[in-house]
Order: sequence, then structure tokens, then C-alpha cells
Amino acid sequence: MTLVLGFPDETAPAQRLAAALQLDYAAIEAHRFPDGESRLTLPPELPPTVVLYRSLDHPDAKLVELLLATRTARELGAERIILITPYLCYMRQDMAFHPGEAVSQRIIGHFLADLADAVITVDAHLHRITHLNQAIPLPQARNLSAAPLLGEFLQKQSRDALLLGPDEESRQWVEQVARAGDFDFGVADKVRHGDREVKIRLPELDYPQRRVVLVDDMISSGHTLAETAGQLYRMGASSVDALCTHALYDAGATSLLDQAGIETIWSCDSVQHSSNAIQLAPLLAESVMEILN
Amino acid sequence: MTLVLGFPDETAPAQRLAAALQLDYAAIEAHRFPDGESRLTLPPELPPTVVLYRSLDHPDAKLVELLLATRTARELGAERIILITPYLCYMRQDMAFHPGEAVSQRIIGHFLADLADAVITVDAHLHRITHLNQAIPLPQARNLSAAPLLGEFLQKQSRDALLLGPDEESRQWVEQVARAGDFDFGVADKVRHGDREVKIRLPELDYPQRRVVLVDDMISSGHTLAETAGQLYRMGASSVDALCTHALYDAGATSLLDQAGIETIWSCDSVQHSSNAIQLAPLLAESVMEILN
Repeated sequence: MTLVLGFPDETAPAQRLAAALQLDYAAIEAHRFPDGESRLTLPPELPPTVVLYRSLDHPDAKLVELLLATRTARELGAERIILITPYLCYMRQDMAFHPGEAVSQRIIGHFLADLADAVITVDAHLHRITHLNQAIPLPQARNLSAAPLLGEFLQKQSRDALLLGPDEESRQWVEQVARAGDFDFGVADKVRHGDREVKIRLPELDYPQRRVVLVDDMISSGHTLAETAGQLYRMGASSVDALCTHALYDAGATSLLDQAGIETIWSCDSVQHSSNAIQLAPLLAESVMEILN
Repeated sequence: MTLVLGFPDETAPAQRLAAALQLDYAAIEAHRFPDGESRLTLPPELPPTVVLYRSLDHPDAKLVELLLATRTARELGAERIILITPYLCYMRQDMAFHPGEAVSQRIIGHFLADLADAVITVDAHLHRITHLNQAIPLPQARNLSAAPLLGEFLQKQSRDALLLGPDEESRQWVEQVARAGDFDFGVADKVRHGDREVKIRLPELDYPQRRVVLVDDMISSGHTLAETAGQLYRMGASSVDALCTHALYDAGATSLLDQAGIETIWSCDSVQHSSNAIQLAPLLAESVMEILN
């Protein structure tokens, strides 16, 4: 019997995945010592196949816990570990932009491939590669798209919205969201300077009196959304909402988005946040079942 | 030409090691993104042998950086990486005390063995194993003793002190410190309950009017030292100081040690702290040179 394992700070989404799979759930006990080390305790006997749920936002301590958990799971009987990591870390540095830079996408990808037998994630931020297994060298490394779920969700919230994606690179994905919900859409032009500064150019569309929903794979600093919302209001949009897969929310993002007048923000439950409105469990479960069968 | 590499938050001790080795030092650039990921930049061309300095207190983020740094160093030309980690993490969990517990000593040990070709540390907390290469399976995994350095240092501070070790397990090491400085010494009995609670029984020695120096491999919570100091003052000791290798200092340790009336605390520079008084560079350099030659 396959078992779903999860960490105490992510009980709710991991249990939802177990429920969608009709499998038992067990918690890994995690104790953090005052010196920053952690002690993990797994169920003492594991079945041959384990589904391990661990989202990897703010990843460093979680990566070490993942190393401890997977190695221990092997010793306790797990022969196949399917890692479900709805938010996958370190996908942005996919080359050395300057000589000597660590190509963390490849290094972390190989690290995960060494721990698990299959990895499933959602809307990983891939640029120069097209398939997740170029980063995580496993036959079963899957990057699922939340776009259909997002489009269907939005259909129930805001039927006549105009969707706007952040940049050309996002066009295909935004189109998928729009198609799933039968929405008009456009994409902006984005030029990035450094970690936080971005310049946005809106596409030429008819904004006055439109309800616009910004769609993006993640909200980090919030600068792109805030800047875009400001321009949309100046162009006469009647409201601006936002829809994303991953609510990373750096410090300061919430107040920035508030100030920009963004009314509602909906996110998936890949990164736990008060904006979570869309559960990924059905999407993840479907992919796990394909691997299990 | 061998190069010493270090991280920006440990420049001073890493540069002292480079100076003791008469080798060039270069800094790894580390940038922490708001989402908790980090970007490392190494010198773009590395010699075949690299000495990498990284102490592993509060280890999790540092372990991920170490993964990124060592893998990148290989790509940039390093064929042999000698890892100098004056404080070595995750050495205390050397067995599953309860069924299902991760044996982190073995898992982290194998992780480090996979990154480096040699590992040198100081006064690692080994209980059930006698040699560091039982935890880190490398032919060159060395656990150096700071005891002689500590004894020689103390000779210059407090010539007639009575040294007191925390428990029977520390006897050999405390004896080494005492011998190096020609001191009287004893060891206490320690019974531990949980992370923080300890009971101490002093050995029967002549305490009235003695200057006592507590010696231990590390200061974490400070409870052991504080409790022992209290008993010593009640027994009539004229002063209590402390000497340790690793100044880990959990939150609250400083005020606890102050309240207990411990006058001076001296530590090695393995973990950076205001109590650092003894430089490990000469000890580490000697061992690196043996490996290099």
C-alpha cells in the first residue's frame, strides 16, 4: 500500500493530495534544535512506494530536510520515492550569466534526482530548457501546468475579465488560462533591471471600463503587478485583480500590491499563503496516478 | 598553485588560514535573493587543488551553499577539494534513538564525502564512533584536537587554575588540555534530561579559594556551565571562567552565563563570536600541509 508522507508545516495540502489519491497520510515529525539542526522522525516501517509532499519555497533548510527524509525513507523500506514539490526552487539560474556563477538549476536538479525516483511540480519557471528532465535528470520529472485550473477557477469569479500576462515568454501559458475560461487576453512587454526594478509596456487593447485580471506564474516582489496595475488604472480600467500559481510574496509585497489598488489576488496552494484559493491536489493526484499505474 | 576559498561572512578566519599556508585567498561572492535562494559566484578559473573554508554552525543554508560551491568548483577546474570545516554539524545524532529517526550524522557525513576529497574539522562531537571517517567515508577525514592549543593558551591567562570537564566522556580531552598547560583537573558527572535540562555532580576536590576554569568542547545552551558554576561558587571557588572550542551560543546563553557569574569565556574561532580568543589557523594549516604534501 502506497503512503503519502508530508511535513508538519504543510499538513493541509499534503492531506488533500492523500485524499485525492485515496491513500493514507502520515506526518514526518520535525524537531528544530536551538543550534539550527533538525531531527526528523518517519513512520518506522514504510511500504515500497512512498509519495513525499514537500513544496520548496524558501528552500535551503527544506532541501536539507529532504536529504534526511529521503535517505531515511530508503532505510525504512521505501524502494520508490515520488516527490511532489508543487513549488520547485532554484529554477531561475539556468546558466552562468557571469563567469564563475553557480548554475543552481542544474546542481539542485541533480541533487533532487539523486534523492527521488520521480519528481512532480507545477508551473516551474523554465527559460532556456523546455523539459523538466533537462534540469532533473529522471525519466519521470514532470512539470504540470496549472493554467487550465486557473482558467476554470476564474470563470466562476469574473466571467467577462480581460486577462493580461506579464511578458512574451508567458504568452502560451496565459493563452491556456484564457482558453480554459473563454477569456480575452493580451501580454505586456517586460524589461527587467536587477532583482526588483522592472519596466512594463502594455499591449494596445481597449482598457476603459474593463475588469482586468493579471495572470502570472508567481508573485515575488510584487513590483511587476503593482507597476502594471498602476498603468491599467491610468488607462481607465475599472478594476484590477490578479491570479497566480505561486504566492511567494517577498517581504513588502503585500503592502505594495495594496497600494497599487489590486483588489483581489487568487493563488494556488503550492506556497501556503492567505491568498490561496485554488487547490492543486486534483492536478497532482492525476499525475501521481499515471506514475503509480 | 593551491587557492584558499572562503565565504564573505567568514573572511577573517579563512584569510588567517590562507596566511598560515602562505597561499592566496579568494572570496566566493554570495547573494541572497528575497525568496531565500542564493546565488554564488566563484573565481572563474580555479587551480587543480582548492582549500575551501566553511564552518557549519547553523548549518542548513550553509550545506546548500556548499553543494553549489563544490559542484561549481569542479566545473571551474578544481580536481581536489579540501574542505576545512572547523565546526562540523549534525554529529550528535549518530543512531536512531527512537524507531524512524533520521541518523543525520551518517547522512550528512555521506553528503560531505560526496562533495569534497578531504575534510578537516576540530573537536567534532563523536560518541559511538571513534574516527571521523566512520561518519564521513573519505580516506582523509580528520578530526583534530584543539586541546593542546587550549592548554597552552590558558597557561598564559591563569597559571594556577583548576580545570573541570563536564563529564566522564570528556576526560581524555580535558586531560590533554590540562597536560598541555600543566594544570590540575577533574571531571563532573552529567545526566541530561531533554534538550536543555542537565544535572551536574562535582568531583570531590578542594574548591575553596580556587580559580576554576570549566573546559568543554562547545557552549550551546549554556545550562551545563551555568549550573556547574553555581555549584562551584557554593563550594567556595574564588572565580569561575570557561574555555571551549566551539562558541555555538544558543539564544539566551549569554545572559544565563552572566547570571551564573562566569567571569571570562574564551573560545576558538571555529564559530565566530565575541568570546573568540584562540585562532585555529596554525592547527588547521598543519593538517592541510600534511594532505598537500
